[in-house]
Amino acid sequence: MADKKSCLIIGAGDDTGSAIARAFAREGMVSCVVRRDRHAAALEELAQSIRDEGHEAVAMPADARDEDEMVALVDRIEKEIGPLEVAVFNIGANVSFPIADTTARVYRKVWEMACFAGFLMGREVAKRMMERERGTIIFTGATASVRGRETLSAFSGAKHALRALAQSMARELGPKNIHVAHTIIDGAIDSNFIREMYPNVDQMRDEDAILNPDHIAQNYVMLHKQPRTAWTHELDMRPWKETW
Amino acid sequence: MADKKSCLIIGAGDDTGSAIARAFAREGMVSCVVRRDRHAAALEELAQSIRDEGHEAVAMPADARDEDEMVALVDRIEKEIGPLEVAVFNIGANVSFPIADTTARVYRKVWEMACFAGFLMGREVAKRMMERERGTIIFTGATASVRGRETLSAFSGAKHALRALAQSMARELGPKNIHVAHTIIDGAIDSNFIREMYPNVDQMRDEDAILNPDHIAQNYVMLHKQPRTAWTHELDMRPWKETW
Amino acid sequence: MADKKSCLIIGAGDDTGSAIARAFAREGMVSCVVRRDRHAAALEELAQSIRDEGHEAVAMPADARDEDEMVALVDRIEKEIGPLEVAVFNIGANVSFPIADTTARVYRKVWEMACFAGFLMGREVAKRMMERERGTIIFTGATASVRGRETLSAFSGAKHALRALAQSMARELGPKNIHVAHTIIDGAIDSNFIREMYPNVDQMRDEDAILNPDHIAQNYVMLHKQPRTAWTHELDMRPWKETW
Amino acid sequence: MADKKSCLIIGAGDDTGSAIARAFAREGMVSCVVRRDRHAAALEELAQSIRDEGHEAVAMPADARDEDEMVALVDRIEKEIGPLEVAVFNIGANVSFPIADTTARVYRKVWEMACFAGFLMGREVAKRMMERERGTIIFTGATASVRGRETLSAFSGAKHALRALAQSMARELGPKNIHVAHTIIDGAIDSNFIREMYPNVDQMRDEDAILNPDHIAQNYVMLHKQPRTAWTHELDMRPWKETW
Repeated sequence: MADKKSCLIIGAGDDTGSAIARAFAREGMVSCVVRRDRHAAALEELAQSIRDEGHEAVAMPADARDEDEMVALVDRIEKEIGPLEVAVFNIGANVSFPIADTTARVYRKVWEMACFAGFLMGREVAKRMMERERGTIIFTGATASVRGRETLSAFSGAKHALRALAQSMARELGPKNIHVAHTIIDGAIDSNFIREMYPNVDQMRDEDAILNPDHIAQNYVMLHKQPRTAWTHELDMRPWKETW
Repeated sequence: MADKKSCLIIGAGDDTGSAIARAFAREGMVSCVVRRDRHAAALEELAQSIRDEGHEAVAMPADARDEDEMVALVDRIEKEIGPLEVAVFNIGANVSFPIADTTARVYRKVWEMACFAGFLMGREVAKRMMERERGTIIFTGATASVRGRETLSAFSGAKHALRALAQSMARELGPKNIHVAHTIIDGAIDSNFIREMYPNVDQMRDEDAILNPDHIAQNYVMLHKQPRTAWTHELDMRPWKETW
Repeated sequence: MADKKSCLIIGAGDDTGSAIARAFAREGMVSCVVRRDRHAAALEELAQSIRDEGHEAVAMPADARDEDEMVALVDRIEKEIGPLEVAVFNIGANVSFPIADTTARVYRKVWEMACFAGFLMGREVAKRMMERERGTIIFTGATASVRGRETLSAFSGAKHALRALAQSMARELGPKNIHVAHTIIDGAIDSNFIREMYPNVDQMRDEDAILNPDHIAQNYVMLHKQPRTAWTHELDMRPWKETW
Repeated sequence: MADKKSCLIIGAGDDTGSAIARAFAREGMVSCVVRRDRHAAALEELAQSIRDEGHEAVAMPADARDEDEMVALVDRIEKEIGPLEVAVFNIGANVSFPIADTTARVYRKVWEMACFAGFLMGREVAKRMMERERGTIIFTGATASVRGRETLSAFSGAKHALRALAQSMARELGPKNIHVAHTIIDGAIDSNFIREMYPNVDQMRDEDAILNPDHIAQNYVMLHKQPRTAWTHELDMRPWKETW
């Protein structure tokens, strides 16, 4: 793998993260996929399925909220796998509680997962990319990134903060040739989570009325490939039928 | 004080918080002013200065980031002082670091002070106001609440999250007759902090080119008094000469 | 009237414009109320009702879309009535058509009424206020000022453009001590127009669930009176029960 | 050309419009390029240069602000050339005047060119696309589409209104399988206009610090090709070095 570039996907547990890891592996990078230790088996399965396609992937279980683990993770990738060319932060933490029922524990945990972990990844990756003056960092956002709403104080708080991080980093790192982008995914994604909640997913899929993770991934690869005279910072995506 | 209403000001350490506490005391409420224990003497001085004017105020040192302390604080106000009619969250935490130099400790602490503490206050106060179906909750925001910028990842993250909290609470609590508002203070405030940084504050003050804390407070009182057919959720304020 | 200040209200035909005219007259200004010639009788009635209260008002029928008429109108007010201290642009033009059914005539007319007329007023009034370095200009906006929506291409286009005008003027004229503000009125107003469309207006009024024109006007007067160290540019207003 | 699809580019006079026309021709469409009659020779030159590459293009001089001409133009394309698959509205009208010096003629003309013409194109093209339930419509925006600024009342007004049009059409036409997108081009474009104003364009070009029209066009083609489960409505673009 010595002369390969690497790609880091934090939050590779859901269908979106998996599709993104697969898509960048197809572009010739080594996809380093991360989710928590307790999902190590599923993570290895994802990495193996990418390798089965003839591409490269490494399962790297870690707690993205732990500073030491994240520092070590980025270190290890840079030393053992290849220079980080792309990093994607894709942890969701979609919870919904009326304000009075939102515990401090939940409020804090959602922020740690959906924002603080993104800060740790962003900072560690940026340090390496700044040395080389190249790279792409993408943060996954949602409608809640731009709009608070009843029962979403924890989730929209974390998502708003992540968007502020992306914007702050883009303004600082753009002139260092690092492309920082933020996506606004507006609509249901064809994923395990949604398949359990919506009974009519099959019909939605037939009508293209639900976000296809591969199509999301295609947009992420496009962001990475944009020529630097015309970089996009914020990219919204929604199915054609979506009401917004 | 038995039949008096109370007003809670978290972050009463700076000139803005002090002016807000004073303004609501002048409206006939008991201003309960809060900042950390180590500033207890200054806090008592503020409360005394309000009482010297013939109004009512109580110094209540507490760590606004501590859930137990905040629950106890709101409890005590409701039991010993009077029903909370107004609550203002006014803690700032304006730090500035390039992304690579932003420590996890700073990033987390800024969020705890400028956002998490706001959540604790908002939730505890909302519980009481929901029982009575009345009250006003105001969160102090800044330009960084709506725009990330180089070196402001921590500060703008916390401020964005606080804005999401305000918006989520407003959408949930408006129909329960609780007025939740968010301000965008855009410009330097005539405060100790600024007086140390800007050599020409006197001239700026002479020209009204710097935000006067009493004028900010006046806008907060106005928000509280707005008739409920025409409530404002977000209020920006800046000096006439400010470039924006 | 020689030493009186004047206030110009363009779009004084609806309940909101009338309430604003009345409110500024109560502040001691001569309210100059404007709507098209064919409504001259109703306009005179409004002026008379303000005078009956012991305040001053003049009916000035004019077509606000006609440059010559607007130049002459502002001239006449300045010469015959008193220096313009406040100007409010309040013409609505709320039409709704699918894009295929939106005629060029409608699209243009809505823009002329709801935006071009605002430009003419804004420019003419600004010229006078710039000489004196004082004054307040307020433009009435709506939810459509910040969000396009199916069937609202004409209305939201005019409203977006009016908001751009307000923002451009605020940035240019603020440092000349002219306060330019824009409101976002989000919800139904208790007006003739709405009373015909909603059968349950009485109930909404009883519950304060519909914007009261007098409360809107109160917010406009507040904007005019804000001390210049803490000016608001954009003010949203909605009833407490409103979903947004 | 009988079985070819067509692409309409209104505002094909500048480098951006030319690059977009060329890019869609390379995708196999017949590029119908439009600008005013007095530039007919340059327009024919553009069309010829596309044909010289082995692709198809037709010069169609017309005044995009004239309803009859636009209706006839779309008619002619559909009858003589091929069904419209893509339409791009790309007329700029970047003027800058202090508010007091903005004539009614300029204010109106800028709106007619940069907004009203866009409405005419959007409506006529939408009618045809709605019958077939397919197609892409892209409107070119700028920083002034989202922010008013001193001296930009006319330009930002037209651009804000165009954005409202794009958003209204997207919400109405998305569920009819028509992809309506709006771009925010933030920065100087490597064009004749800029080359005359900036002495150091060569250096900017060497550093990729100026938007390359071909890269803009590449983003437009990408928007057209996005799978419909993940459509983007608003796409910002700026050079990596741009301050924003």
